Amino acid sequence: MLKIWIRKLSFSNFLSDFPVYMEKYPGLAEIKSAAQLINGFIHRTPVLKSSCINKIMGANIWFKCENFQKAGSFKFRGASFNILSLSNEEKKKGVCTHSSGNHAQALALAAKNMGIKAYIVMPENSSSVKIAAVRSYGGEITFCKPTLEAREQMLNIIMEETGAKEIHPYNDLKTITGQATAAMELIEEIPELDMIMAPVGGGGLLSGTALVTRYLSQKTKTVAAEPKNADDAYRSFYAQKFIPSVNPNTIADGLLTSLGSLTFPIIQEHVDQIITTSEESIVKAMHLIWERMKIIIEPSSAVPLASLMEIMEHNDNILDFKGKKIGIILSGGNLDLNKIPWI
Amino acid sequence: MLKIWIRKLSFSNFLSDFPVYMEKYPGLAEIKSAAQLINGFIHRTPVLKSSCINKIMGANIWFKCENFQKAGSFKFRGASFNILSLSNEEKKKGVCTHSSGNHAQALALAAKNMGIKAYIVMPENSSSVKIAAVRSYGGEITFCKPTLEAREQMLNIIMEETGAKEIHPYNDLKTITGQATAAMELIEEIPELDMIMAPVGGGGLLSGTALVTRYLSQKTKTVAAEPKNADDAYRSFYAQKFIPSVNPNTIADGLLTSLGSLTFPIIQEHVDQIITTSEESIVKAMHLIWERMKIIIEPSSAVPLASLMEIMEHNDNILDFKGKKIGIILSGGNLDLNKIPWI
Repeated sequence: MLKIWIRKLSFSNFLSDFPVYMEKYPGLAEIKSAAQLINGFIHRTPVLKSSCINKIMGANIWFKCENFQKAGSFKFRGASFNILSLSNEEKKKGVCTHSSGNHAQALALAAKNMGIKAYIVMPENSSSVKIAAVRSYGGEITFCKPTLEAREQMLNIIMEETGAKEIHPYNDLKTITGQATAAMELIEEIPELDMIMAPVGGGGLLSGTALVTRYLSQKTKTVAAEPKNADDAYRSFYAQKFIPSVNPNTIADGLLTSLGSLTFPIIQEHVDQIITTSEESIVKAMHLIWERMKIIIEPSSAVPLASLMEIMEHNDNILDFKGKKIGIILSGGNLDLNKIPWI
Repeated sequence: MLKIWIRKLSFSNFLSDFPVYMEKYPGLAEIKSAAQLINGFIHRTPVLKSSCINKIMGANIWFKCENFQKAGSFKFRGASFNILSLSNEEKKKGVCTHSSGNHAQALALAAKNMGIKAYIVMPENSSSVKIAAVRSYGGEITFCKPTLEAREQMLNIIMEETGAKEIHPYNDLKTITGQATAAMELIEEIPELDMIMAPVGGGGLLSGTALVTRYLSQKTKTVAAEPKNADDAYRSFYAQKFIPSVNPNTIADGLLTSLGSLTFPIIQEHVDQIITTSEESIVKAMHLIWERMKIIIEPSSAVPLASLMEIMEHNDNILDFKGKKIGIILSGGNLDLNKIPWI
């Protein structure tokens, strides 16, 4: 009780920085309507389990396989919902973003599927695999220096030239609403979970997950997992103030970003716990899922299982998951197959 | 017409060597009853497709994902049906086989699930990954020199000592009947296929596939695919006489075995075509499936798609698959994840 009270109090304080957004957090009706809108454009991804992993972990784990989502990650949900929400006028001008990762691919493919243009600003040191993927989905790439400043500058130039609308990868209510549909499908399929877990980077997936879990399954805890080497969400959550990442360096390249001004307060209010994990455990968990489930996930997807494995290994009592019903969102499956981390 | 007539004639000649088996080929009723018996013990594996691969290939391809089968391959079907068909007396004594591959794992797990013993003879140079897998399924391993003679000798000793029943990986009617259930599920899910493809090693999967396709979908051609470097089935099929492999050497390690006395005549009569493929194409096809479908398949599973890719690349007219509805059985997903062929 005390913990909740403290968290709520600090949240109210924190909120003074973000009053304007509070009224607008996506509600259940909005998430349901987003799900209806994107249905037919996205895959309803399967929920898989592995008796071997359950045996190892001593828990019942269901994996929501967004690695099978179109463009290879959950990002396709938010991108699709965003584009479907545009006015006809906006659609004519297209969409744009700066991203070297899954959001770039997702936005390019979602735009292509709906017949509109996507302008993607990518740092010039992006991996050739990612550049090829964005190209294969028809994204119009502009390269820039690999700094946030250069990316934002180039994006502004493109927005001015084209009138394209920026679609933010996480700090956007429509993006958050779209990402929430993954957890909604999981809860529909496996009700009465004790815990639902998602990795956290910018916090778009986690915010959507926490909101929809609060709406649909009050008894289910939302637990986020984050690499120790990029633990801004963990530190911000427990310090009750926004602490951005400085030089994050993790194999989980989807989780390098810091939380946003929209995602942090949602996470503060609706996430129950954030746990962290080492690089070594991320690789171990990724290997275990590849080996036993025969599915390809990227390192970021392995972070929730990795954090549970580490708790078990260290006999830690920060989270009791033994015998529990746990849903884990496997966020994506995009990685350079020439760079397998354990080889 | 002529081709069929020639094949039937030669088949009749060939059969003089195998008269006793002819009466016993599994019929549709037997396959259906096997499916009912093993239902609950096996996974009904998903059928997946990839719009990207379809676009590349110019065809509609459905993949029956036996890489998701228990113990990681279709072999679990035949092993389970075999064990479920044992008398109580036989069950008490257990089962045995010599195998360094998927059959060893499948038999060990099927036996464990049904509470009986599995004695597995493995060559002493088997990979540590495979040994660990058999052990993890509770198989009792006896090592021997890595020759067929030593394997058979050791198996005989074990059979004499324990009274365990040998379960052959492919040259056994119950094994063939069990393996047929994979194609039966595929045809149930995707009827009116123009073509169904399976890789061929010893021919257990291919025989079952060809029989059930003949029973359920007469218009569907059964096409086998084989590595050029282990092409005994291809050469035997077209020479109309059994030609065993000599020093086969392929990355598709599930397909090293030569056809058996039971599988060859079934294949002669019911398979429409056998095509072969290079090692390079096998690796390319495997990479494509990993990359685009985000699923882990072993090299043997990639052989059918590889053979189609090679036909396309060489503009070959031996098989017209463009625009066709094709079912491909992905045979398994067991491989040493430390040895990815393209790295």
